[in-house]
Amino acid sequence: MSRFDVVGIGNALVDVISHESDEFVVEHGLERGAMQLVDTERAEQLYAAMGPATEISGGSAANTMVGVASLGGSAAFVGRVNSDQLGAVFGHDLRAAGVEFTTPPATDGAPTGRCLIIVTPDAQRTLNTYLGASALLGPTELDDTLLSSAQVLYLEGYLWDEPDAKDAFRRAARTAHEAGNRVAFTLSDGFCVDRHREEFLELIEHEVDVLFANEVEITSLYEVGEFDDALQLVHDHCEIAALTRSEKGSLIVTRDEVHLIDAHPVAQVVDTTGAGDLYAAGFLYGLTNGYDLGTCGRLGALAAAEVISHLGARPQVLLTELAQPILATRA
Amino acid sequence: MSRFDVVGIGNALVDVISHESDEFVVEHGLERGAMQLVDTERAEQLYAAMGPATEISGGSAANTMVGVASLGGSAAFVGRVNSDQLGAVFGHDLRAAGVEFTTPPATDGAPTGRCLIIVTPDAQRTLNTYLGASALLGPTELDDTLLSSAQVLYLEGYLWDEPDAKDAFRRAARTAHEAGNRVAFTLSDGFCVDRHREEFLELIEHEVDVLFANEVEITSLYEVGEFDDALQLVHDHCEIAALTRSEKGSLIVTRDEVHLIDAHPVAQVVDTTGAGDLYAAGFLYGLTNGYDLGTCGRLGALAAAEVISHLGARPQVLLTELAQPILATRA
Repeated sequence: MSRFDVVGIGNALVDVISHESDEFVVEHGLERGAMQLVDTERAEQLYAAMGPATEISGGSAANTMVGVASLGGSAAFVGRVNSDQLGAVFGHDLRAAGVEFTTPPATDGAPTGRCLIIVTPDAQRTLNTYLGASALLGPTELDDTLLSSAQVLYLEGYLWDEPDAKDAFRRAARTAHEAGNRVAFTLSDGFCVDRHREEFLELIEHEVDVLFANEVEITSLYEVGEFDDALQLVHDHCEIAALTRSEKGSLIVTRDEVHLIDAHPVAQVVDTTGAGDLYAAGFLYGLTNGYDLGTCGRLGALAAAEVISHLGARPQVLLTELAQPILATRA
Repeated sequence: MSRFDVVGIGNALVDVISHESDEFVVEHGLERGAMQLVDTERAEQLYAAMGPATEISGGSAANTMVGVASLGGSAAFVGRVNSDQLGAVFGHDLRAAGVEFTTPPATDGAPTGRCLIIVTPDAQRTLNTYLGASALLGPTELDDTLLSSAQVLYLEGYLWDEPDAKDAFRRAARTAHEAGNRVAFTLSDGFCVDRHREEFLELIEHEVDVLFANEVEITSLYEVGEFDDALQLVHDHCEIAALTRSEKGSLIVTRDEVHLIDAHPVAQVVDTTGAGDLYAAGFLYGLTNGYDLGTCGRLGALAAAEVISHLGARPQVLLTELAQPILATRA
C-alpha cells in the first residue's frame, strides 16, 4: 500500500500576478505566452513596472499536487524555498491544502523564488520566473523513503533549467522505478522544450511512463508542424501520453487505447495559468485511484476548467465536490 | 491491378434544394437536420410549398464517387434511376464528373428519386427523400465483375431502408471480400442508425472493414452519451474507423494507429450537405492511392471543407488541384 497517490518535484515559487495591457508585453520585450527565466535585476525591474499585484503560491508541480489533494487524493511536494516570509507563505498554503511538504528550507543565499505573471486582456499569461531558492534543489534534498512511497512520481520539465535539479530528477526517477512506481513528466512549456529537446527525448524514451504535453510542446518536441505528426511519434514513445489542446480537448493514447475527451465548458476564461497543471492533477488523481483513462481525462478537463475560470493557478473550490457527477457515473 | 479505386452503391437521387426559414421547418413538421423518407404525396406537397429551388444530382454514395474522381481517382457508381428526364440528368452529371455509371435505368414504375433539401439560415440541412426508382435496386442489378474490380466497395447506410437494397448490399459485400477487396460503410445519419441499429452492429462486426460515422451516428449506434464512450466500442469493432466531428475535426483509429486531424478552415459555411460524403471521398482516395491514414484524413477534411463552402453536395472545383499542397508534402 503506497502512502501517497502522487509525489511531485518542482520549482517552489510564489506567483505575483498583475493584469497588464498588450502594450506592456511589447514594451518590456516579453515572449508572449511563454515562461522566461529572469535574474534578480530583471525581476526587480519588471516588478517595479507592474501594477498592483496579487501574490498566490504557485509552481507548476506544486499546483498539481494541490489539485490532487483537492480531489481527495494524497499528495506530497518536494521543492525548495528560503526561510523567508514568502517561503513561509508557500509552505503554509501547501499544507493548508492538504499536501505534505517537508523539504527543509534554505537558510541563507537566494530568497524564495517567484514567478511574475502578466495576464493580458485575452486571458493569456506571460511568465517571468526568478528561480531564487528553488534552484537550490539537488539530490541531497531528496528523501528516498518519500519518493518510494507514492504510486506516481511527478516531475516538471522546468526542473531541467538547473544542473543540480537535473541530477535530483534522474535520481528520483530511478528511486521511483526501483520501488515499482510510475514516473510522470510534463514538458512544461514550448520554450522549455526548445532548450532541452534532446535530453527530453531521451528521458521520455528511458524514464517516463506518463507524459503530459500541450500541442505547442509536443510539436516542438518532435519538431513537426502538425499535431497529428507529433501524435504518431509519441504513440510508441511512452506508456501513456496525455495531450492537451486547450478548447479542443485532450487526447490520451497508449499502445492499446485511445480516448478523446472534450474540454469541460467554462462560462468565462479569466486566466489560463495552471490549466496544464490542473489537468495533470485530475488525470493523476484518476490514475492512482483506479479510474479508466477516459475518466482520468474527464477529471483533468474538469480541474483545468475550474482553474481557468478565476485568477491564480490553484483551485478555489473543493474539486472533489465538482467531480461528483463524473465519479458517480464512472465508478 | 484493380480497374477502379472505389465502387459505390447507393440511392440515385437528384437533390432539390431551397433556402427556407426556421419557421418553414416547424410548420411542415420536419425533423431538423435529419433525413426522412417521404411518399409520393408528401413529396409533392412539400415541393409545392418550397420556394424557388436548385436541382443538383446528389445521393450520398454518388457524391462520394464524384469526390473520388475529382481527386483524380477512378470511381464507379451503382444505383437506379428511371429513364425519365431527371434520370438522364443524374447519369449525365455522374459521367461528366468522370464516374463510370452503367446500371440500367428502370423503364417503368416509379420516377427517378429525389431529395427535397431545406437549408435553414444556420446552413443546416433537413432532407426529405422520395426514393422513387432508387428503391428498385436489388441483387439482380449488380454486376459482379464491376464489384470485384475495385479496391474498395463503398456502401451507404441509407440502402438499408429497402429490403431489396439490403440483399444487394450483402451480396455486394460478399463479392468484394471474395475478390480480396475491402468493404467501406457509412452510417449515413443518426435516424437511419436508429432504424437499423442491430443490423448495423452485426454488419460492422462481420462485413465492414472501413467505417465512416459522425458523432451523432456513432453515439446513436452504441447508445452512449459521449463520443469517447463510442470510441472505446468502435475501436476493436472494425479495421479502420474514421469518425468525423464537424468543426472539431476527425479521429481515425485502427488497432495500432490513431490520427487526430483538424477540420480544414472554411471562410463561410454555406450548406453542410455532403460534408460526410466528401470526407469519405477524400479518405478513400487516399486509402486506395497509397497514402497513410493521417493523409487520408487530411484529404477528407479538405474535400468536406470545399463542399460546405457552397450550395450542393458535389465539388465545384477540381479537388485534385486543391489537394496539391497536401499531396506534395505527404507523398
